[in-house]
Amino acid sequence: MKIGILGAGQLGRMLALAGYPLDLDFVFLDPAPEACAAPLGEHLYAAYEDENALAEFCRQIDIATYEFENVPAKTAEFVAHRVPLLPAPLALSVGQDRLSEKQLFDQLGIPVPRYMPVATREALDLAVRHIGLPAVLKTRRLGYDGKGQALLRAAADVDAAWQKLGASSGSAKLILEAFVPFERELSCLAVRGRRGELAFYPVVENVHRDGILRVATPRANDPLQSEAEDYARRVVEHLDYTGVLAFEFFVADGHLLANEIAPRVHNSGHWTIEGAECSQFENHLRAITGLPLGSTALRGPSVMVNFIGHPPADADLAAIPGVHIHHYGKTPKPQRKVGHATVTAADEAELKQRLQRLQALVDASAQ
Amino acid sequence: MKIGILGAGQLGRMLALAGYPLDLDFVFLDPAPEACAAPLGEHLYAAYEDENALAEFCRQIDIATYEFENVPAKTAEFVAHRVPLLPAPLALSVGQDRLSEKQLFDQLGIPVPRYMPVATREALDLAVRHIGLPAVLKTRRLGYDGKGQALLRAAADVDAAWQKLGASSGSAKLILEAFVPFERELSCLAVRGRRGELAFYPVVENVHRDGILRVATPRANDPLQSEAEDYARRVVEHLDYTGVLAFEFFVADGHLLANEIAPRVHNSGHWTIEGAECSQFENHLRAITGLPLGSTALRGPSVMVNFIGHPPADADLAAIPGVHIHHYGKTPKPQRKVGHATVTAADEAELKQRLQRLQALVDASAQ
Repeated sequence: MKIGILGAGQLGRMLALAGYPLDLDFVFLDPAPEACAAPLGEHLYAAYEDENALAEFCRQIDIATYEFENVPAKTAEFVAHRVPLLPAPLALSVGQDRLSEKQLFDQLGIPVPRYMPVATREALDLAVRHIGLPAVLKTRRLGYDGKGQALLRAAADVDAAWQKLGASSGSAKLILEAFVPFERELSCLAVRGRRGELAFYPVVENVHRDGILRVATPRANDPLQSEAEDYARRVVEHLDYTGVLAFEFFVADGHLLANEIAPRVHNSGHWTIEGAECSQFENHLRAITGLPLGSTALRGPSVMVNFIGHPPADADLAAIPGVHIHHYGKTPKPQRKVGHATVTAADEAELKQRLQRLQALVDASAQ
Repeated sequence: MKIGILGAGQLGRMLALAGYPLDLDFVFLDPAPEACAAPLGEHLYAAYEDENALAEFCRQIDIATYEFENVPAKTAEFVAHRVPLLPAPLALSVGQDRLSEKQLFDQLGIPVPRYMPVATREALDLAVRHIGLPAVLKTRRLGYDGKGQALLRAAADVDAAWQKLGASSGSAKLILEAFVPFERELSCLAVRGRRGELAFYPVVENVHRDGILRVATPRANDPLQSEAEDYARRVVEHLDYTGVLAFEFFVADGHLLANEIAPRVHNSGHWTIEGAECSQFENHLRAITGLPLGSTALRGPSVMVNFIGHPPADADLAAIPGVHIHHYGKTPKPQRKVGHATVTAADEAELKQRLQRLQALVDASAQ
């Protein structure tokens, strides 16, 4: 069976690595000539809007999916008219707009930080009065890794934030969200099969810096597991979702506040390759091809650390027992995710000691 | 770094799947147009004797290795003169000839079943008198999966065996080996790095049928582990070997008798993908690229079952918890290895129960 993937970045690469053992083959459509999944399948090098290329893509494949959530809605519709596109385009369009995402959470009774849409300078002032400060001004679309965001600590920051994100167009599409003084950031990875069957990985505790995920640690028996599953279930059932969905939360006052969803495999699930019985990548493929889902159980303690900018030297990484290296085949560049390592260990004490060695290498090399 | 692999079968496919996360890329040379590793790298579709293709292969790569032990010696020499070829061609030439292999074991003090070279019908009679019956007549070269062998139970079988294997040429290259009424068959996978560092996986108990491996079970704390490591160490150190080497043994009277070596990753090590800290495929690549070796420790109980002929349906396989599916992308054909599954479990009882379910599926579908 041939799977078409819209996007050919590291998520596509890891999907393909998980898919070959299931006898799947891969076609990627991605406008980047050096897309890092390209060596692992056929690469149609074309814009997402190129309908000739999209038609060719659809001719070659049995099922389509995506690894990039900013696939244009029109592209998704074009593909979905020709081959099964899973998850369905609705999830894509909801997840692409922070406002529709928040409204969905509201509709499903999932707590969210206070928010207001902002289209003009006046609306921003109104929103600041309504929500209070600190708050975060965000573009409704196309933000990732902390891009398209401005933190407003005090009234004096409002002008600069507007200049940065809103002033460029007559009608800006922004959202102001209350800043959440969170205790932790958690994500929940859900997977839903074609017949509605559901599985959830253990929640993951995430540490970001400069808006970029740095460290993700799965938490067995976290007190918020069932709350996270409950919210994720509401979303995937409402969207009649197929595949892996990532749901990011803030933890404040011991409870979850919804931050955002990503309708795809997710960086906070990379530890599942070695840390879970069945990885998020394999489970996404099992889900969209209609196979029974794999077990989401932990295999033991694990933690994932991203390589941002420059990765450490392989000889140093490989010298730490239990370190599993994952390069993405990308050219190093400041603030770019170029790989990750997952550490596994027999127990928490050993994990901590191995993680310290890994973290020292990553800190010394990253930018 | 670009790795060239001579051969592009399932072993090459699994090497590539293990190698992309290490930022390795792959070029395969294989005369089969449908070689199953081809989708995972560049495939030079050429005969092993095609020196233009070999020169092109060498131009593209940094290091060469092989996944097929019957690469012609001349091919190996051609490549080794241009790029580092690891393991070195000596291991290839020793392993290709059952007689030189046995002589090496003798030289290194490793017990072997009685054997005699056989070149003529008269020599066969002499060997039968010397070794006794039952015995096994084998071609010295190019045997695999039970091919090129004939079992001699009684004097009446000698003629038929000679007709089958020896009569076709004036000077046959055969070997007669005493039949070993073995208690078990074990293999030991050794890995040796470029600076001579050594690691050994737990020994594996193998079950063959019709000369083809069916089930391989790693054995933690097997009483023969240190004996197996001792013998494997003698071989890899003598050959100044780099990479993974598989050493197959018979167990008779509670001790090891050497059967054969394979200078490559091996079917009896496929369980290491999920069952060991670092797989045989990753460790082979670590070894030849000069990285520190990964841990060969077990992650928990596991067992591997081959798919011979026809694989079971994926929906049935995926429904068994802890079953990891590995298709090779090969067209089903009687007696052909088309894939395998590794079962993992929390304990031996769970493993046994899952294995029974898997075995029932395999038995129902295999040919």
